[in-house]
Amino acid sequence: MIKEAIYHRPKNSYAYAYDANTLHIRLRSKKDDLTDVELIHGDPYRWAEGHMLSDKLPMAKMTSDELFDYWFIAISPENNRFVYQFEVTDGNETWVMGEMGFTQDLEDNRFFRFPYLNAIDVFDAPAWVKDTVWYQIFPERFANGNPERKTNTNGVWGDVPKPDSFFGGDFEGIIQHLDYLAELGISGIYMTPIFEAPTNHKYDTIDYMKIDPQFGDKETFRQLVKACHERGIRVMLDAVFNHSGYGFAPFQDVLKNGASSRYADWFHMIGFGEEEGDHPAYESFAFTDNMPKLKTSNPEVKEYLLGVAKYWIEEFDIDGWRLDVANEVDHKFWREFRNTVRAAKDDVYIIAEIWNDAMPWLQGDQFDSVMNYPFTEAVIDFIAKGKIGATRFGNLLTSHLQLYPENVSEVMFNLLGSHDTARVLTQCGDDTSKLKLAFLLLFTYPGSPCIYYGDEVGLTGDGDDFAYYRSCMEWDPKKQDQDLLDSVKRLIAIRKSHPALTANSRLQVLKSDDASGLFVFSRSQGDEEIVVALNNGEEPVTVPVPSDWQAKKISDLWTGQGIPSEPGIVDCVLEPKQFRIITINK
Amino acid sequence: MIKEAIYHRPKNSYAYAYDANTLHIRLRSKKDDLTDVELIHGDPYRWAEGHMLSDKLPMAKMTSDELFDYWFIAISPENNRFVYQFEVTDGNETWVMGEMGFTQDLEDNRFFRFPYLNAIDVFDAPAWVKDTVWYQIFPERFANGNPERKTNTNGVWGDVPKPDSFFGGDFEGIIQHLDYLAELGISGIYMTPIFEAPTNHKYDTIDYMKIDPQFGDKETFRQLVKACHERGIRVMLDAVFNHSGYGFAPFQDVLKNGASSRYADWFHMIGFGEEEGDHPAYESFAFTDNMPKLKTSNPEVKEYLLGVAKYWIEEFDIDGWRLDVANEVDHKFWREFRNTVRAAKDDVYIIAEIWNDAMPWLQGDQFDSVMNYPFTEAVIDFIAKGKIGATRFGNLLTSHLQLYPENVSEVMFNLLGSHDTARVLTQCGDDTSKLKLAFLLLFTYPGSPCIYYGDEVGLTGDGDDFAYYRSCMEWDPKKQDQDLLDSVKRLIAIRKSHPALTANSRLQVLKSDDASGLFVFSRSQGDEEIVVALNNGEEPVTVPVPSDWQAKKISDLWTGQGIPSEPGIVDCVLEPKQFRIITINK
Repeated sequence: MIKEAIYHRPKNSYAYAYDANTLHIRLRSKKDDLTDVELIHGDPYRWAEGHMLSDKLPMAKMTSDELFDYWFIAISPENNRFVYQFEVTDGNETWVMGEMGFTQDLEDNRFFRFPYLNAIDVFDAPAWVKDTVWYQIFPERFANGNPERKTNTNGVWGDVPKPDSFFGGDFEGIIQHLDYLAELGISGIYMTPIFEAPTNHKYDTIDYMKIDPQFGDKETFRQLVKACHERGIRVMLDAVFNHSGYGFAPFQDVLKNGASSRYADWFHMIGFGEEEGDHPAYESFAFTDNMPKLKTSNPEVKEYLLGVAKYWIEEFDIDGWRLDVANEVDHKFWREFRNTVRAAKDDVYIIAEIWNDAMPWLQGDQFDSVMNYPFTEAVIDFIAKGKIGATRFGNLLTSHLQLYPENVSEVMFNLLGSHDTARVLTQCGDDTSKLKLAFLLLFTYPGSPCIYYGDEVGLTGDGDDFAYYRSCMEWDPKKQDQDLLDSVKRLIAIRKSHPALTANSRLQVLKSDDASGLFVFSRSQGDEEIVVALNNGEEPVTVPVPSDWQAKKISDLWTGQGIPSEPGIVDCVLEPKQFRIITINK
Repeated sequence: MIKEAIYHRPKNSYAYAYDANTLHIRLRSKKDDLTDVELIHGDPYRWAEGHMLSDKLPMAKMTSDELFDYWFIAISPENNRFVYQFEVTDGNETWVMGEMGFTQDLEDNRFFRFPYLNAIDVFDAPAWVKDTVWYQIFPERFANGNPERKTNTNGVWGDVPKPDSFFGGDFEGIIQHLDYLAELGISGIYMTPIFEAPTNHKYDTIDYMKIDPQFGDKETFRQLVKACHERGIRVMLDAVFNHSGYGFAPFQDVLKNGASSRYADWFHMIGFGEEEGDHPAYESFAFTDNMPKLKTSNPEVKEYLLGVAKYWIEEFDIDGWRLDVANEVDHKFWREFRNTVRAAKDDVYIIAEIWNDAMPWLQGDQFDSVMNYPFTEAVIDFIAKGKIGATRFGNLLTSHLQLYPENVSEVMFNLLGSHDTARVLTQCGDDTSKLKLAFLLLFTYPGSPCIYYGDEVGLTGDGDDFAYYRSCMEWDPKKQDQDLLDSVKRLIAIRKSHPALTANSRLQVLKSDDASGLFVFSRSQGDEEIVVALNNGEEPVTVPVPSDWQAKKISDLWTGQGIPSEPGIVDCVLEPKQFRIITINK
């Protein structure tokens, strides 16, 4: 037994409250090392004759990745209190693993403890998120609905964008195309920043209380939110609270008045230009001078920004905040942020831009979700670039799902790309059949999927500047890839009509074959199992028949047809870059 | 290489801010597996030619326990941002370990990230705690300074205590013996609950705003705090916020008025006795009917209890709160508790009763420290009971120190016993020489040590009820163990005059020998190294000579004498249960 590989530590992803009555306990061990894991558990206050009373329950080997097996059990402690140890065996030796490591006797050890399941601490993302399909809009590039107002356009809609391009996208444009989004199946839009800022991306806010005049005004925004809500579409805004723009009035005041500015402590000032001719020095986001870092630990700054967060909810009824560069802002700020926005509206969705393991922010006290770039990267490397094989791809997905509690994975904000990545179709080498596989994965994966505007009609863009990822939306039906668009619509429709794809975050990799590129996985809920098979290789590949196929009712979700119980049909051949998505009802 | 044994996950104990400028990074690997670990690190925003710029630094193998080696590096990121991967080698194979596991090339992996070192998130226990020596007082049993006031005594001071005994201890008694404590070297007292309650232990509060009349009143308490502060002694109270007493007015109101009580939601009511003759059912602490669990998630309850916490700080200037059954109360409550009490007084020490791994509460947002019962248990098992050998003892200490960030271990509340454990001398089989070794460990260990009242003069007590652990303090000098008391005084004096024992939480096990019972460890700070050697066996044992003893200035801290540089003297023989504590100056 490789004891050193066996890992468990309460809270985080290894012991957590799934809901107000259920604990999830996980244990990680070296792959194929342990044959059985039992959970020895009890109530810390139930004793008899000097011994704590305990019971034993078997844990299930739920899944495996490259190096590890993951053992799991869900349990509802009778009195909300729970202590436990693990009995692990590899067939040859058996050990008790508790807080003090490995012992032969559980009384020589110390029980792990989940002291009390307090409902108020349970991670509580809004219930609507699991069923939402998002659409990310870069407002300057989605649609120009009111050309008259524009004073700053410097190019023709559809030109290759440059860093300083302005094409005139606005709120009216979005409103005019909401029916397009509704028909696509979208139920949430996420807009990159809309507050006054000089750049086209607006991540350098000048005034957090003002709509950028090129996009519209508060009245136009109110109409936009109303028009979305009428269509069952939720609205999420982008909060850039890590830094302001250079033109933000308090920052300008500091530049002007130096240390004597009443805003001198609103930023991370390094020096105030004491030497003649020196300019004030300050910390900025990513060494970008026009993005001075805000001092969110200053109570005044905090009060100001929390006021902003609350204002747009209370006055305009928005449904979510996406938090830019969230991991560089202090945890204390975000805890207050959550309290503030949830008090303003109790089902606001809070997602953060964090590209890494985000567990420290996803414990119920800060964020509901993060932008799931690790998923993006795995899909790009497997499908678009062929850099990794099916096995590594499956392992990456499994590892990532095991990194978080199940209720966290259920609301992960999944994406194939964003304003910060090269367009997925371009990364696919303009091969639409690859992009369709990527969309298949997006819409069958646990979480809350998001389309980056235009990916559904074949927008492209790559290069050494972010500008290229932010092309103008293509509205000419003849230039839109209608076949792609139709595929995306069908995938969304399938997702929305099958709870097995949304109700939980469990995913079982059934087959991953590096040689052929075959990748098969399943999602299950209640009596339904959905199996997704795709061929990421260059040759036709045969999908193996489930051993018990005859006992089940099987339908092809893509064609919408039932599959007769004949092995020749279940046992399909997938051409390169083709996929199959079937539902099996017990 | 056993890759499965290599563990790192940012934040918690593996990557944390030690102070506003310093990150600590740790990596765990199978014992004796890796030969070298290098930290590849960079600033996430410093790139050149499409590659992030990175440097490499060697990590040190700091310590080992039974199964693992622990690698460490302290680093000050130039711009507060830090990304890193590990290059690990066992002499045969070399791998890069990042967020995506093990790869050959760091660009196939993802960097771990400590996104930004925000000073406001740094764990910030009060600076005075490391240098404090605590004394725990059970007020009913310490000293009766005002016998006239007592109406409830039912025994003679010194009788064997019964569960319902009252001997008349009070604040005047404590005040009268503060000089005794000051002479002993005490700089903080922790009193178990002092608010009105029917039991002698007072963990069943009736009125959180009233001093128990048997102990005194607010005026007496004010005098006590003043008298302590005049002697440089800090005062910590016990907050029992998990549950109230049965007689707590709001609970009585619920019993009387059932569901229509305005306090109906102050407790975890299971039922209100709807059936005729039924009594209301409620959750209680440890199935103890007279301790109904408070619903700390109810904003009214929270406001009430936070008001209590603030009141005793603002009105009486107390210095700390010890939080009873803290792990069964919700995290959200404790975060607000911290904000509230720290706003009232910015260097209040907050420690919690948590007997298990308490990492989820020690991240800077909730507690400063916990009662270190794992230390207690290790000392009892090794010294008092001989249940474990020197090797296991050393491994348990090392594992426990590695469980927490260094700045957390620096302020751990260490104890040999409390009102909740059998008296340490009794556990030592009344062998004072063992108890002296236990005290030696207490006062040379990293953290903030606490003496349970009377342990220093030889109080005993054991049995099947907590009552026996709470004997009356012995004030007759002839019945006090003066030799023991003198030893404790000397150990405290040594601790207080040597920063190597308090300034950091590093401890190096130099020798642990199961056969002889020899255990040797060192503590270091700056140019000073303190070596502690003890013989926990039954035969004399020779302490090995440090190889470089001749180059150093060595003193025996116990005798206070310099040791001539002769091997025969450095190379001492320890009789059974004897110890040596020496200081080595470079």
